Amino acid sequence: MLAVTILGNNSALPAYDRHPTAQVVTLDDQLFLVDCGEGTQMQLSRYKIRRSRINHIFISHLHGDHYFGLIGLLTSMGLMNREQDLFLYAPSPLEELINWQLKVASTSLPYTIRFSPLLEEGVIASGPKFKVEAFKVYHRIECWGFKFMQVRAPRKVNPLKARENKIPEHFFDRLKSGEDYTRDDGFVVKNEFVTDAAPKPLSYAFAADTAFNKAVAEKVKEVDMLYHEATYLKDLEERAIARFHCTSTQAAIIAQEANAGKLLLGHFSSKYEKLDPFLEEAKEIFPNTELALEGVTYRV
Amino acid sequence: MLAVTILGNNSALPAYDRHPTAQVVTLDDQLFLVDCGEGTQMQLSRYKIRRSRINHIFISHLHGDHYFGLIGLLTSMGLMNREQDLFLYAPSPLEELINWQLKVASTSLPYTIRFSPLLEEGVIASGPKFKVEAFKVYHRIECWGFKFMQVRAPRKVNPLKARENKIPEHFFDRLKSGEDYTRDDGFVVKNEFVTDAAPKPLSYAFAADTAFNKAVAEKVKEVDMLYHEATYLKDLEERAIARFHCTSTQAAIIAQEANAGKLLLGHFSSKYEKLDPFLEEAKEIFPNTELALEGVTYRV
Repeated sequence: MLAVTILGNNSALPAYDRHPTAQVVTLDDQLFLVDCGEGTQMQLSRYKIRRSRINHIFISHLHGDHYFGLIGLLTSMGLMNREQDLFLYAPSPLEELINWQLKVASTSLPYTIRFSPLLEEGVIASGPKFKVEAFKVYHRIECWGFKFMQVRAPRKVNPLKARENKIPEHFFDRLKSGEDYTRDDGFVVKNEFVTDAAPKPLSYAFAADTAFNKAVAEKVKEVDMLYHEATYLKDLEERAIARFHCTSTQAAIIAQEANAGKLLLGHFSSKYEKLDPFLEEAKEIFPNTELALEGVTYRV
Repeated sequence: MLAVTILGNNSALPAYDRHPTAQVVTLDDQLFLVDCGEGTQMQLSRYKIRRSRINHIFISHLHGDHYFGLIGLLTSMGLMNREQDLFLYAPSPLEELINWQLKVASTSLPYTIRFSPLLEEGVIASGPKFKVEAFKVYHRIECWGFKFMQVRAPRKVNPLKARENKIPEHFFDRLKSGEDYTRDDGFVVKNEFVTDAAPKPLSYAFAADTAFNKAVAEKVKEVDMLYHEATYLKDLEERAIARFHCTSTQAAIIAQEANAGKLLLGHFSSKYEKLDPFLEEAKEIFPNTELALEGVTYRV
């Protein structure tokens, strides 16, 4: 199961009851919070997502609309007597900023924040069933995208067929990882013959705030679902360039080049009350596009 | 005109769609923002209060539920191209914290923040029609209350009566400030005889977060309206003491000792869904009590 629930889909200035960026990625039994604009903890309450279930938080960059809600959430987790470690992945200055805010309040948290500064591209978090990669995008300040991937599940051994082919049980673990079995008589039992394929591992990429750059498409190649910012409609492409943001059309080009399964558009400028034109413009290029609407859960 | 509009009436942990502390005091043509918990800018939008009309912000203390929304509001004011100076009165560490958050975002504001650290009790802001005093309250960390006062309006000269009594026009300004006029023949024209009294100047005090302490009553003596925190009901007085907060009953005692005109209760703990018991308990001691409800404007 891989899905994303949108908590905030607006750019910097909150408007029309749209909130700054925040979303919750559900990957099997894990909940990942991606960015944490002001009001995220209230949005979590509104959409009945328990704060206690979040163990990993990813912050793309230090523009306020992507992290001003973090300190409130961390504090509330403390007031709710959280004890479990919390993993936080973010640009490095955030750690000291959090510590300073706790210090002026004479507060300490009852749980540990395990802070990982974002330093280079690659895997930053992993577990038995998931893997998260960070990748750089092209914004006015240091900014990171995140790719959430199910780990390839092991192949399923068919015990009946395996025994018929005289494969000993101690080799089953190696069968699960895809190995063939060579019998003492030299005969090779092909793995596919005695195992079934695991379901395809799913992937979702959050491309954060970025200028239009085809390198992003390379970084999110073949993802099942791509969230890409579309701050402006295509007629404001010059403004998008000047501000290191994208238009709806540019987001769709990235999704197309990446051969993504689906495109989610978000980070809409507060100058737009109606969002349908974003969808229309993007669909001209990449038909399987949806608007990232607050409160909605999009499944891969 | 003196009134307060409640934007947040909850204590630290947001709950039941109640927000952390923030309120807007309207004193004639001035709007003062008092505290700025997370989400204040959204609450301002919700209740149609224009951010641009706020020129003075007062922060009582550096617990997050009283200021985590400030940086978002300041940033949004910048995005809306504010040019006018903004006056900010707060405990001193807040200035550096704001500057640091702007720095990591590579952002500068298009307007100037004129920061006044709260250092001692007394007048901290004033204008032709208003005066604001800070006073210390008794919380776990340094914490300030604020008293908003209309400046005593000048008396109104009755020009007909003044001329009948042979008072020259150049003396009218002195009449407005309450002086008697002594004629050349030694006859004294009493001020009250040729002027009318100005309406009584109104006052409102925000007593911030505080333990029960009768010294607070002295500091807010005779205010027309007093906002006093009531985090707990009276059966949790011990918890209130341990956490430097008050109960509904204690808040009412302070209002009574201060001889306040009206009492507004707020800063309710998130353990309470229903607020009516706060009102009932306080009214037993101080009948003219109201709950500070979000979105409601209470006039003095």
